[in-house]
Amino acid sequence: MPRSHAHLPRLHVEPDLVAGAPLTLGKEQSLYLAAVLRKSVGDEVVLFNGRDGAWLCRITADSKKSVGLDVVDRIAAQTPPSDLWYGFAPLKSERLDYMVQKAVEMGVGTIQPVVTQFTQNHRVKTERLQANAIEAAEQCEVLVVPSIAAEVSLGQLLDGWPTQHGDRKLLFADEGAASSSPVVALEQLRGQRVGLLVGPEGGFSDKERTKLHGLPFVVPISLGPRILRADTAAVAGLAAIQAIIGDWR
Amino acid sequence: MPRSHAHLPRLHVEPDLVAGAPLTLGKEQSLYLAAVLRKSVGDEVVLFNGRDGAWLCRITADSKKSVGLDVVDRIAAQTPPSDLWYGFAPLKSERLDYMVQKAVEMGVGTIQPVVTQFTQNHRVKTERLQANAIEAAEQCEVLVVPSIAAEVSLGQLLDGWPTQHGDRKLLFADEGAASSSPVVALEQLRGQRVGLLVGPEGGFSDKERTKLHGLPFVVPISLGPRILRADTAAVAGLAAIQAIIGDWR
Repeated sequence: MPRSHAHLPRLHVEPDLVAGAPLTLGKEQSLYLAAVLRKSVGDEVVLFNGRDGAWLCRITADSKKSVGLDVVDRIAAQTPPSDLWYGFAPLKSERLDYMVQKAVEMGVGTIQPVVTQFTQNHRVKTERLQANAIEAAEQCEVLVVPSIAAEVSLGQLLDGWPTQHGDRKLLFADEGAASSSPVVALEQLRGQRVGLLVGPEGGFSDKERTKLHGLPFVVPISLGPRILRADTAAVAGLAAIQAIIGDWR
Repeated sequence: MPRSHAHLPRLHVEPDLVAGAPLTLGKEQSLYLAAVLRKSVGDEVVLFNGRDGAWLCRITADSKKSVGLDVVDRIAAQTPPSDLWYGFAPLKSERLDYMVQKAVEMGVGTIQPVVTQFTQNHRVKTERLQANAIEAAEQCEVLVVPSIAAEVSLGQLLDGWPTQHGDRKLLFADEGAASSSPVVALEQLRGQRVGLLVGPEGGFSDKERTKLHGLPFVVPISLGPRILRADTAAVAGLAAIQAIIGDWR
């Protein structure tokens, strides 16, 4: 994307984006643009909807309740949705928001909260995760907002995996594994559909690890010799996957 | 490390750790153990000093001003210092602390603040970084605290690199690079001494990138097709290095 657009406000919208077809924003986004960012008629904004790429738009009406825009020019082609599945044990409040943000930055396609034995937070609102995912996509110029799956327990996830996910392999960051490089394990999965499961701060229980190790679609990987916090493990694991067999190409 | 020690307080100390040689903690650590954690005579603590491994110790005196301990048993062998050099443009306050914490979790050996054109924070206190590094090592069971190098400008770093760092290669996360996998670039550096430089939120200026690209010891790497925040780039870059040619073995 040309650098000249890098500092323009960027918003996710629902309607189709077509050159010459004007758009009106809802109350929340209008207030944000007109009152918070103090944009006015003539100012430029970038809009995306996850289907039509990124579009340069120009404000034609700057009421705080109802900002109107002309859709001018497409500045980036639509990127395909990511196939990478990502499940994580929800942390509390800010750290939860942060986990979602990092997942979006790292290019996951689906985000699923998974409640495990040592999970801190058992009441995750999908709407909150969705709002965080949209905001992260807006801030990091990601053109598809990952879908947020409803919270499940680890048992439900694993029992339902073959039915729901078919041949997708489930990588999990195994704190109990001897330190090793995930390169070999990942290379063997090249071209296959994969997901990454990151556990809570306390890790997985012995019972959970035993169950995970016993499932044919599960691939334990090591994230090195040190203890990683959950948010570090998330980024490190996703980086290893994306760098070795993912979309860092 | 046996899981039974996982929940014991863990502190970094200066003196040698030898079985049978008692230790007395200073005011700050004594207050922390006795008043904050409310530990008392007989309670166990893990101590490390970066030289002698991790030791199980038992409290013998629990005054808030002066906690005394018996050094009982070594529970983990000393790990060697990491050779991985890490430079980053300092962010503000909490985010700065976070950057140091992540670097320690990812196993770097040296941490150096580097002031670039778009750097937000120009007054980094080495003592603060040191305290953060120690705390991160304590929390993540890292047995060597990375050394903190004094802040330098990017120009000083690059001009002095051959003299200071000899044959060490300097990887830098190049936002301007076409997306590619760093696997090939990293494989070519296997067995060599390397460092990673992560820029500020605004990235490197055109002038800085031109200079970096012109230096023989510099190796630009891509961290994928998306824009990463500085702290995400740090963990992702360090993960790629450690996973592919580092200590995730």
